Amino acid sequence: MSKRSVLLHLDADDHPSVFDRVVAVDAGVDVLLSHGSVKVGQVRDLVHGAIFTRGPKDLNRTALFVGGSNVEKAEELYSEARKHLLPQYGLRVSMMLDANGCNTTAVAAVRAVMASVPYSGARALVLAGTGPVGQRVVSLLARLGCAVRLASRQLDRAEAAARAILCKRPGAVIEAVAPANPFDMSRALEDCDILVACGAAGIRLVDHGIWSKKRLKVVVDLNGVPPMGIEGIEPFDSGVEREGAICHGALGVGGFKMKLHKACISSLFETNQLELEEDAIFDRAVILAGG
Amino acid sequence: MSKRSVLLHLDADDHPSVFDRVVAVDAGVDVLLSHGSVKVGQVRDLVHGAIFTRGPKDLNRTALFVGGSNVEKAEELYSEARKHLLPQYGLRVSMMLDANGCNTTAVAAVRAVMASVPYSGARALVLAGTGPVGQRVVSLLARLGCAVRLASRQLDRAEAAARAILCKRPGAVIEAVAPANPFDMSRALEDCDILVACGAAGIRLVDHGIWSKKRLKVVVDLNGVPPMGIEGIEPFDSGVEREGAICHGALGVGGFKMKLHKACISSLFETNQLELEEDAIFDRAVILAGG
Amino acid sequence: MSKRSVLLHLDADDHPSVFDRVVAVDAGVDVLLSHGSVKVGQVRDLVHGAIFTRGPKDLNRTALFVGGSNVEKAEELYSEARKHLLPQYGLRVSMMLDANGCNTTAVAAVRAVMASVPYSGARALVLAGTGPVGQRVVSLLARLGCAVRLASRQLDRAEAAARAILCKRPGAVIEAVAPANPFDMSRALEDCDILVACGAAGIRLVDHGIWSKKRLKVVVDLNGVPPMGIEGIEPFDSGVEREGAICHGALGVGGFKMKLHKACISSLFETNQLELEEDAIFDRAVILAGG
Repeated sequence: MSKRSVLLHLDADDHPSVFDRVVAVDAGVDVLLSHGSVKVGQVRDLVHGAIFTRGPKDLNRTALFVGGSNVEKAEELYSEARKHLLPQYGLRVSMMLDANGCNTTAVAAVRAVMASVPYSGARALVLAGTGPVGQRVVSLLARLGCAVRLASRQLDRAEAAARAILCKRPGAVIEAVAPANPFDMSRALEDCDILVACGAAGIRLVDHGIWSKKRLKVVVDLNGVPPMGIEGIEPFDSGVEREGAICHGALGVGGFKMKLHKACISSLFETNQLELEEDAIFDRAVILAGG
Repeated sequence: MSKRSVLLHLDADDHPSVFDRVVAVDAGVDVLLSHGSVKVGQVRDLVHGAIFTRGPKDLNRTALFVGGSNVEKAEELYSEARKHLLPQYGLRVSMMLDANGCNTTAVAAVRAVMASVPYSGARALVLAGTGPVGQRVVSLLARLGCAVRLASRQLDRAEAAARAILCKRPGAVIEAVAPANPFDMSRALEDCDILVACGAAGIRLVDHGIWSKKRLKVVVDLNGVPPMGIEGIEPFDSGVEREGAICHGALGVGGFKMKLHKACISSLFETNQLELEEDAIFDRAVILAGG
Repeated sequence: MSKRSVLLHLDADDHPSVFDRVVAVDAGVDVLLSHGSVKVGQVRDLVHGAIFTRGPKDLNRTALFVGGSNVEKAEELYSEARKHLLPQYGLRVSMMLDANGCNTTAVAAVRAVMASVPYSGARALVLAGTGPVGQRVVSLLARLGCAVRLASRQLDRAEAAARAILCKRPGAVIEAVAPANPFDMSRALEDCDILVACGAAGIRLVDHGIWSKKRLKVVVDLNGVPPMGIEGIEPFDSGVEREGAICHGALGVGGFKMKLHKACISSLFETNQLELEEDAIFDRAVILAGG
């Protein structure tokens, strides 16, 4: 009989995320070992405990998930954890990073775009494009062959984010913008097919009067708490047509995000080789959505 | 197949109570998510994690238990948790408060009284009536139609506790007393049918020479560590007659308390609508005791 | 149906050891209650939670494991926990101490010796004999009737460790040595049959040129990280002959250590009477190894 599946769940927050814990349970994890308040210096021993307890042929039954509300800290924990795997001896476990749902949310947003319009060669504006979700949306749209405008309130931050993504995706077409007023915003939307808002809960990013005058084909708003990021979009929108555009709200996107999150957790136990981050999670989403 | 039952267990103590964890296991909980050192400001995210992960029709498989040695802090956590449910969207889970066993212990003590004497219209003296268990015993006896004397060492604290209970149970007959010597104690016991001691472990509250001269019908002592709160009562007493009164000790009451605690935890997963505090736990006890 | 097995796992480290958690899962524990950052003053309530929740006849389904990287602190927690059992009422649980694997590692090393040579009356040198594993190796070899030289860099520490073991095993033959140079080391190995190195990872304790000239019958090195503690021993050595001696490396010994650790955890649930420390774990190892 195969060993019980064990998910080591590391989180830098005081309490390991209950959201992530329940999703792991519903994804079928047998034993969940959740640790909160994890510091980088503590990762080595935690990871060694995971890889030194089962032989290489059973290590597909152990996996590592890094979550938490602070994406930057989670990335540090994840990257530290990777250092302490010993793949040369077969001593490694599959890993997934989804702090604050950043990867599964960004992938679900991009998948909503893909399901709505022909995307290769399309033009997209991503609002709040410097945050963890925003950067991933920009990066994935660029991967799909879109020309992307990455918007932020501060131009220097937008430019820095754009440069970081270009390092990862050389040849991508990304332009940094910082629309400071309705006139700028209207210009940023010029010729755009796709508008995605990745802003914080309850913050309006663009008024209905502006985007409704454009010929947008798809609009996605990941803010589910009123006021909406994009005025006129409703949280439960899931492919609804508004002003000629196919619209998706936070909860509309959320259903697929949850399915994807669970599917990714389950897949961690298929082999001990996976590293599920932005691109690998995107690939899983394509399979999950049926191509 | 229905989802595994998940109990989110919040505790303000450094370590989440092992007592409460084992009882939850024995009540059949599939997955126990215990969090210690919980602060009020952390409750929102913990509760959101519980209600945003399963759809409304599956939320009866998730529940919340608030425990811990400090009843006041637990009440704050419980009350904070209730604020973050979203019943308007069906996003809520059943909840139970039993910090330090205060509710199940008080209910078990009152149920021992009910099993021993006709209680409506009876007169009761509750010693250490200002503590978490004592206040609940007074309140439940008042609900049953008893006239209750609430005793404490300090009269002002006894009066404050009595007022608080009267706010919740208008029309109840509660008198605050502060017996400072054997003479006062004897007077406080005048005409009483019921004596319940809710004091701390190892503290004598009333001597045998005093209570044995009265015509008490039932005596309950919740202190199980010698010296007893009521001299002459033994921890394992469970309906034993002494000096003409039916007597119950801490361990005698404890058996039913444990059954009740487990039955309450199990019932949390029948629906996502329960709020198990003093009165609702009392109602469960009546059913459990067979009416 | 018997109750689910519950292992209360106490650890003084910030995070309860993931190694110990996964081993407990693989040993078949149903519910693992792991607590990190445990302080001595918190042990009473944790232990009371374990012994006051199930009746004496079910307490074989609850057990206590004390682990952690700091053996001294773990010994304090273990000894404190023992104080709060109430065996006079049948209220106790089986307990095991294996902080940093000290007991199972030392036992596995000694068992490797036993499997390799006639040990009664043999002469042994134990390097790094003042550490938690080293002291236990010396003590167990003395129990087997070996004359043991306990080596450390500081003579006074070696003497103190030897005295401590003699208190426990009166009549044992233990000599403290502090070889400061190759010449001393060569003399310490004089007439020895057995050499065991219990030093820290990556620290060379004895060169090949020294030990290979002796007539050693068995050599065990518990350091698995190069450079080896005993030059010439390989981590995976498991009864390999080198220079006429039967050799065991850290990973060679580790396989039996893991089996022993799991067998000990499983046995905790056979009765509520066990106290698995050095000697009792050794006895289990003898049974596990088939005599």
